Amino acid sequence: MSMTTENTSPGTHVGSRTAGRRGLRPEDNPRLGMDRSFPLEGILVIDLSRLLAGPVCGRMLADGGARVIHVERTGRGDDSRMLPPFTKDNVSEYYRIANTGKESVTLDFKDPADMELLKHMIAEADVLLENFRPGVMGRLGLDPEELVEWHPRLIVASISGFGQWGPMAEQAAYDTVVQAYSGIMDLTGYPERTAVRVGTSVSDMVAGQLGYAGIVTALYARERTGKGTTVDISMLDGTFTLLEQGLTSPEDEGAVLTRVGNRHPFCYPFDLYECADSPIYICTANDHLWRSLATALGHPEWICDPRLKGNPDRADNWEYCGDLIGAVLKTNTAAHWLKVIQEAGVPVAPVLGVEDTRRLPQIVERGMLKELGDGNVAMGTPIKYGAWNSYGSTKDAPQLDEEGDAIRAEFS
Amino acid sequence: MSMTTENTSPGTHVGSRTAGRRGLRPEDNPRLGMDRSFPLEGILVIDLSRLLAGPVCGRMLADGGARVIHVERTGRGDDSRMLPPFTKDNVSEYYRIANTGKESVTLDFKDPADMELLKHMIAEADVLLENFRPGVMGRLGLDPEELVEWHPRLIVASISGFGQWGPMAEQAAYDTVVQAYSGIMDLTGYPERTAVRVGTSVSDMVAGQLGYAGIVTALYARERTGKGTTVDISMLDGTFTLLEQGLTSPEDEGAVLTRVGNRHPFCYPFDLYECADSPIYICTANDHLWRSLATALGHPEWICDPRLKGNPDRADNWEYCGDLIGAVLKTNTAAHWLKVIQEAGVPVAPVLGVEDTRRLPQIVERGMLKELGDGNVAMGTPIKYGAWNSYGSTKDAPQLDEEGDAIRAEFS
Repeated sequence: MSMTTENTSPGTHVGSRTAGRRGLRPEDNPRLGMDRSFPLEGILVIDLSRLLAGPVCGRMLADGGARVIHVERTGRGDDSRMLPPFTKDNVSEYYRIANTGKESVTLDFKDPADMELLKHMIAEADVLLENFRPGVMGRLGLDPEELVEWHPRLIVASISGFGQWGPMAEQAAYDTVVQAYSGIMDLTGYPERTAVRVGTSVSDMVAGQLGYAGIVTALYARERTGKGTTVDISMLDGTFTLLEQGLTSPEDEGAVLTRVGNRHPFCYPFDLYECADSPIYICTANDHLWRSLATALGHPEWICDPRLKGNPDRADNWEYCGDLIGAVLKTNTAAHWLKVIQEAGVPVAPVLGVEDTRRLPQIVERGMLKELGDGNVAMGTPIKYGAWNSYGSTKDAPQLDEEGDAIRAEFS
Repeated sequence: MSMTTENTSPGTHVGSRTAGRRGLRPEDNPRLGMDRSFPLEGILVIDLSRLLAGPVCGRMLADGGARVIHVERTGRGDDSRMLPPFTKDNVSEYYRIANTGKESVTLDFKDPADMELLKHMIAEADVLLENFRPGVMGRLGLDPEELVEWHPRLIVASISGFGQWGPMAEQAAYDTVVQAYSGIMDLTGYPERTAVRVGTSVSDMVAGQLGYAGIVTALYARERTGKGTTVDISMLDGTFTLLEQGLTSPEDEGAVLTRVGNRHPFCYPFDLYECADSPIYICTANDHLWRSLATALGHPEWICDPRLKGNPDRADNWEYCGDLIGAVLKTNTAAHWLKVIQEAGVPVAPVLGVEDTRRLPQIVERGMLKELGDGNVAMGTPIKYGAWNSYGSTKDAPQLDEEGDAIRAEFS
């Protein structure tokens, strides 16, 4: 379904000075504020987390300017170092994505000397981040609530599948287990087929972002009150809040409680349509946009059709409405219709594959892929500030125990 | 695909004292800290946003304890008030979901007196939140960068489809236009069919969460430095950061750059399997879990099969591996296999529909649906603190201009 970027829409042409490279160099865009200071400067984070949700949270803190020390277990380190895909140098991209900007030290949680060192590190930290199964921290002698009692300014953030308490707290969870419980999977896909996984680890990623949000909220509150706190993020809670449908009841008029394919549950025409060559997505969320669309497609008479008048009419008669639109779009290419519909001011898009998204000038110019000092490319930061550095860390993800000796010397 | 909660897994049995009601009452769970103070107490937010991404960001600030004044245009107010589904009282649930905890005032942006009032409100605010198309604020005389110059402690947060700058900045965007450009849609669905929309407005919701994260980061930095800032959130940037696949290159070994149905792009067995009655999702992300699964399914000999030894072997031979597992699961019910697989410590889940997710005791007990004073149910907050209120606001979404007179008196 992916399309080359050349023939899509005015916004997607290739030709910026950065398009030839893999990612954006810091000096390419002064708006990213490479020379400005960081909002989280001076914050020390001890990151005990592994795999995806916790590490992504730690990476966001590092991109905000915090010093993040990734503590990995002696020997093989974070499980994700073993996960594909691998670069030509046999480094896991899966690990790299979530751990840029961090330092690495390995510790053996069964070695009392290493646990002593960890406690020294925690005593100096602002934030301790972990995503073990609930209960594991307690068995390591690091119960989050106790740690905050001992260190009243400390923020201990825990990310888990279902949260630190509740009947499912100790159940094993990975991303898609949570997707399945949350309702998002049942809502995704075609009605005549089984539910389908969101094609990325959305429950992990959203939990990582909410972990960041909770930690920074706690840092702000600490500035005012001097008090630290625990922070408890559940991947299930977080995924559930993504659902507009989460609150609708069967008795609500217009509620849509299971998957409906590509159309929006409440608006029409808000759907994927096949053109002569490839599909485009059109979003018509109000009557004004509907009139613009009908006119742009050469059928102003649709506006007067009582079956298509208001959004509720079109939502009721979506098959009829979709057939009319589909018949017109089939007569020309996606590139043609993208141009026509965009010029009418109606939101419309091609369905880009990741390779094309990576090359989209909007992605490149906003530094969403950034080139690090070593030439590797890293995920950029999605929070841009006028007053603060918005490029994020330029340090690549660490080799296992890369800063270990220095960290052991510093905190022993 | 949804299952009743009774026959699924140990964590999903119904029977808690709260299960009979629609949502959790504040007093039901002291862990939610209804009696504790809020982390964002004393913060004043002027929320000019409408529809979904901006309002969700404002709701998160209100749930953190900020005072959030939703400014809506005189007459019909926020567009989302017209969107289904509607409650029996003809109130839009779509509006309610995103606007609990706020006050409402209507202003006419073409009336100089109203604009004067708005400027008074902004002069006293900590945060101004908006999600107009880039450029509209400037035409209203409210350019974000200028506002921060005039009010050096102000934080002006803008959420838009593609960001405040870059070649696509002024292009019209709704959620699914962004999903289509971001790559997440191309990654979702079955390879033999067209890409499919994530069944919720994930690009809006994630942008709202990142807006909250950026605002709170800016509040923290302001405590340290006295400086406000603009915050620029792009739905495209935010959705792109959800993709683990965003960084992988075609030359990376094991890269998966388009949709693969229900399986995980990098791990196996990590897939949806049909049992005798309904499907279950199993997540086996490492060799230890694989050995537990094979044993639990009564086939320890699979462990020694060289085609299934390590995760890379299983990922290469996923069809073979999936056929073996599928043949076993077909012999009994989902409830049976959920119990067996869960007892073996392997992450597994039924695919719940939203109605069942709403009743899940884990969702209910963690206050993810909360009962407000008026008996209506609202979305709970996904960030739980040990030291701060984690129930969020108990105020229902406002009627149009509900607090208008009081606000006009206060700020004129």
